[in-house]
Amino acid sequence: MARRIAIFDTTLRDGEQVPGCGLSKNEKLKIAKELEALGVDVIESGFPISSPGDFESVRLLSKEIKNSSICALSRAVKNDIETAARALEGAVRPRIHTGLGTSDQHVFTKLNFTREQVLEKAHECVTHARSFVDEVEFYAEDAGRTSNEFLAQVIEVAVAAGAKVVNIPDTTGFCLPEEYGAKIKYLIDNVKGIENAVISAHCHNDLGLATANSIAAIKNGAGQIECTINGIGERAGNTSLEEVVMVIKKHPELALETGINTQLLFPISQMVSQTMCMPVQANKAVVGSNAFSHSSGIHQDGVIKNRDNYEIIDPYEVGVNKSSIILTARSGRAALNFRLIELGVHLGKEELEETYQEFLEMADRINVVEDKDLKYLVKNHEVIVK
Amino acid sequence: MARRIAIFDTTLRDGEQVPGCGLSKNEKLKIAKELEALGVDVIESGFPISSPGDFESVRLLSKEIKNSSICALSRAVKNDIETAARALEGAVRPRIHTGLGTSDQHVFTKLNFTREQVLEKAHECVTHARSFVDEVEFYAEDAGRTSNEFLAQVIEVAVAAGAKVVNIPDTTGFCLPEEYGAKIKYLIDNVKGIENAVISAHCHNDLGLATANSIAAIKNGAGQIECTINGIGERAGNTSLEEVVMVIKKHPELALETGINTQLLFPISQMVSQTMCMPVQANKAVVGSNAFSHSSGIHQDGVIKNRDNYEIIDPYEVGVNKSSIILTARSGRAALNFRLIELGVHLGKEELEETYQEFLEMADRINVVEDKDLKYLVKNHEVIVK
Repeated sequence: MARRIAIFDTTLRDGEQVPGCGLSKNEKLKIAKELEALGVDVIESGFPISSPGDFESVRLLSKEIKNSSICALSRAVKNDIETAARALEGAVRPRIHTGLGTSDQHVFTKLNFTREQVLEKAHECVTHARSFVDEVEFYAEDAGRTSNEFLAQVIEVAVAAGAKVVNIPDTTGFCLPEEYGAKIKYLIDNVKGIENAVISAHCHNDLGLATANSIAAIKNGAGQIECTINGIGERAGNTSLEEVVMVIKKHPELALETGINTQLLFPISQMVSQTMCMPVQANKAVVGSNAFSHSSGIHQDGVIKNRDNYEIIDPYEVGVNKSSIILTARSGRAALNFRLIELGVHLGKEELEETYQEFLEMADRINVVEDKDLKYLVKNHEVIVK
Repeated sequence: MARRIAIFDTTLRDGEQVPGCGLSKNEKLKIAKELEALGVDVIESGFPISSPGDFESVRLLSKEIKNSSICALSRAVKNDIETAARALEGAVRPRIHTGLGTSDQHVFTKLNFTREQVLEKAHECVTHARSFVDEVEFYAEDAGRTSNEFLAQVIEVAVAAGAKVVNIPDTTGFCLPEEYGAKIKYLIDNVKGIENAVISAHCHNDLGLATANSIAAIKNGAGQIECTINGIGERAGNTSLEEVVMVIKKHPELALETGINTQLLFPISQMVSQTMCMPVQANKAVVGSNAFSHSSGIHQDGVIKNRDNYEIIDPYEVGVNKSSIILTARSGRAALNFRLIELGVHLGKEELEETYQEFLEMADRINVVEDKDLKYLVKNHEVIVK
């Protein structure tokens, strides 16, 4: 049986940390409703202590969203936690996400703590958060650069204090997949009580490895992935929700599943992109505008014969209407003929060859040859276009 | 000692297969000159049989580029190979890239071949290409979905026929990193004569795993990575050159190196994006406009204390002028104060607290707070701005 991986969406918190993409509370609600429909398990909705606007957003989502946990971020600071708890009042499944840095870099340079103080704070913040809600998630910031030994100590303290989920962020996007997977395995093998908590992967894409790192984590026992629509987020962004969900779906040998309705992936990608004014590049995996376009002759010929030759995802599966054959100077005779037949033009071998040579000259000049251009071409041949 | 990984750039061939991004020969030359300066080992410059324009481009680059191999693509077809050879005349280090599909999907559905015919064609095309040039690279299209056993047979034939490089493309972007790495290892362990050839990784990003797969390949013995600037290419694109190069650079424990001058990465990314009219999304790893921006309070505070808290790549290293602290409703007091001091405004604790509350209200309303807005804020406090 497939093991269920929880999808923790942080588009509205870590994603919203993108410069210039601040969302109003109504925009947050609009996105949250779509995330709920998509089937995400947890919606991280904001960082209530950070601003009055963010507090209000978390409050609104706590009232309106019923089928996903609503999560709010806080530092390991009493007032942060209390403010988060207040913002979450009324939520069906409120979750407080609290924690602190654990790498030497963060402990000694940023926090100016001793390691003992980190352990105390971890105990304190989880205990305090548990006094308000059941679902407490602890984060060990910069876990990616934290020694496995100390990380295990911190996580053990957090789990003992009642954390239901423990988040192991690769905050700077530094880890390689094997390294990050081994870190998760180390925690499973060495943290007393870890069976009482879900381990969560939270990866950043600074080196382009966020998806691979998240998959390495779940292969090694993590049960939750933190991600955003279109992979948006601070710097190079977070793990892309659509990528990890499709990796899990296309690789049944992993024996994993999520609750995501993949047919809503493309529509929500478009909606988030528009609402946050964050364009998605054409070659973005799964949801880019070219993800299902074919323009080279070899590929078009292959796709015309059988789509599986060059496509591993059926576009319908992610809510895209169809894959497209785009005619350019890299297209071959097969693609040209395929499109001509669609237009009702049936050419003999010699005619096709002649038309193809003219087509190439045209394509070298104008790049993409559209139907109107084709009609112009075949008119020269005095062929009747139905 | 670090093992040198060859960087094979295919921006001008696989990258140019992006719908609507066809390049003129002068545009190709402009990009090729920058790729040469960047230090790529091989520039795949086109597919000469595909159109007269592409033939001319390969011809021009063969004349003008001196420090990188110039490579031309061909199918396992006599006329393709001969046309590629003609286009490459005059190149300092000409390379013909030839091959055919090897997966069951490609062999039986696309090519309508028997496996024996595939082996014959592999021998034939490499032998024919070697009659023109020394540097022959063989590709086993859809190797990602080819059984390791049959793939090893094909590669053995190609190497015996004189292929200096054997390309193992994950054409559809389907493989997981461990699977792709294991495939490379299988070839090293099972192909007779493989020590006479370089194994090349050619990955696609359909599931967001191209970078991780390429790294898995070189960890398992591959010696060349095929990639494009900004990861452009058909569908979700190819492996991003900038990502694999920076993974190798930031992880010295891999004991690998490339010949890339990383300070040219950002400039060439911008140039390719503009020339091909392919915008790079803000959260693109390494070269996105936000890759070095910080807007959340926790991160800004950390970066102000010490950049290493949240940055693993020094922006200067990839040719970006500086990392930026962007003031939004997620910014904290530390970031606000830091910017105020830069503006010559020194506030006491209480004044700062008051200004911060007003700053938050403003940021909730206008998103990004710029210097002019800050000056307006502090004017209200009758503080003199130098």
